[in-house]
Amino acid sequence: MSNFRTLELHIDVNAANDVIASGIRKELDEKGLFLINVMASPGAGKTSCLMRTIDKLRDRHKIGVMEADIEADVDADKMEKAGVRTIQVHTGGECAMDADMTAAALREFPSDDLDLIFMENIGNLVCPAENDTGATINVAILSIPEGDDKPLKYPLMFKVCQAVIINKIDTRDYFDFDDDAVVRRIKRLNPESEVFFVSAKTGEGFDKWTDWLETQMNK
Amino acid sequence: MSNFRTLELHIDVNAANDVIASGIRKELDEKGLFLINVMASPGAGKTSCLMRTIDKLRDRHKIGVMEADIEADVDADKMEKAGVRTIQVHTGGECAMDADMTAAALREFPSDDLDLIFMENIGNLVCPAENDTGATINVAILSIPEGDDKPLKYPLMFKVCQAVIINKIDTRDYFDFDDDAVVRRIKRLNPESEVFFVSAKTGEGFDKWTDWLETQMNK
Repeated sequence: MSNFRTLELHIDVNAANDVIASGIRKELDEKGLFLINVMASPGAGKTSCLMRTIDKLRDRHKIGVMEADIEADVDADKMEKAGVRTIQVHTGGECAMDADMTAAALREFPSDDLDLIFMENIGNLVCPAENDTGATINVAILSIPEGDDKPLKYPLMFKVCQAVIINKIDTRDYFDFDDDAVVRRIKRLNPESEVFFVSAKTGEGFDKWTDWLETQMNK
Repeated sequence: MSNFRTLELHIDVNAANDVIASGIRKELDEKGLFLINVMASPGAGKTSCLMRTIDKLRDRHKIGVMEADIEADVDADKMEKAGVRTIQVHTGGECAMDADMTAAALREFPSDDLDLIFMENIGNLVCPAENDTGATINVAILSIPEGDDKPLKYPLMFKVCQAVIINKIDTRDYFDFDDDAVVRRIKRLNPESEVFFVSAKTGEGFDKWTDWLETQMNK
């Protein structure tokens, strides 16, 4: 047993957000538009994983990207240079996208023109998991250097995601990362969750992920 | 020039928190107690950097640790096993410590008994930077695998920190990380900021950091 004292502090839930989010999801569904909320720590490789994913899917789908950042444009610039239809959202200090912001960003895309939108949420494993954005599915990216204990520390993130991408598998030799342990910890939080191991650097593992994603889109 | 549209969304500032934080800092100062708010992304190596730091300082200082987590006890367990006086704070979903939580946690330490407390904030580069906790100084840890662009994306974090520790320098060969660029980006946001390069794995670089820290304590 632990000897240290533990303080349990307050929790805050935003019910209005959930109502807006449900409305967005219904509208997306009616339009046949698939919105993927991509969440991860800073530096886990969200942008480079999205680049690889978009490269695999752009021949078959009309794709847009929402880049959410506190104030920078770094990732939107990269996307635009790669020829992807991009909108930059500045949250003005807010640590995650919420349903209102998502609705505002969706209005900027002529939606009859696209069938797949990736939302690159702010780099953070806490707040983005707390806000339902109205996305069709949620995906978390976790990278090998961050460690296999992240599902223990940020459980809500792994509860709300339908899939987890483990990135930077090319760096495995440098870090103690237990693949089996991370899968077990993710499945304990969410038994239905899919887990994909990839390297955005080498391209390894992306086929399984994009195959699964297209299956979800065709459901 | 960019062709993508940019939406500027709302900002929220908590003025009451700042008043409480100032009160905490004044009280700490009167007691000769030095509180360090340590912030970083998930997996940057907060706990292992703190372990190295505490090992170097524990002969000369009476040290305590506050471990802030959403709900896990993983890091507090490690600290306790290392014989460090530890208190676990569960923020109950909140993405960062604030001044109220800090005051509550400080009440758990008999303060005349300690001269140095490390607060390991929740892994996150956004919200912790927005809340003044009342700590004497703020320190950010950034790790090589996260990339040298983080000061561009999370500028507030680097503005509010007196020192930045760049961890995992043992993995330099595996990642494109430009030391000069990261220092330049940090100094542009905060010209007074100190930058230390360390490896919590090998112990390299910790002397300069702890020397600087003790100089700050003796000011």
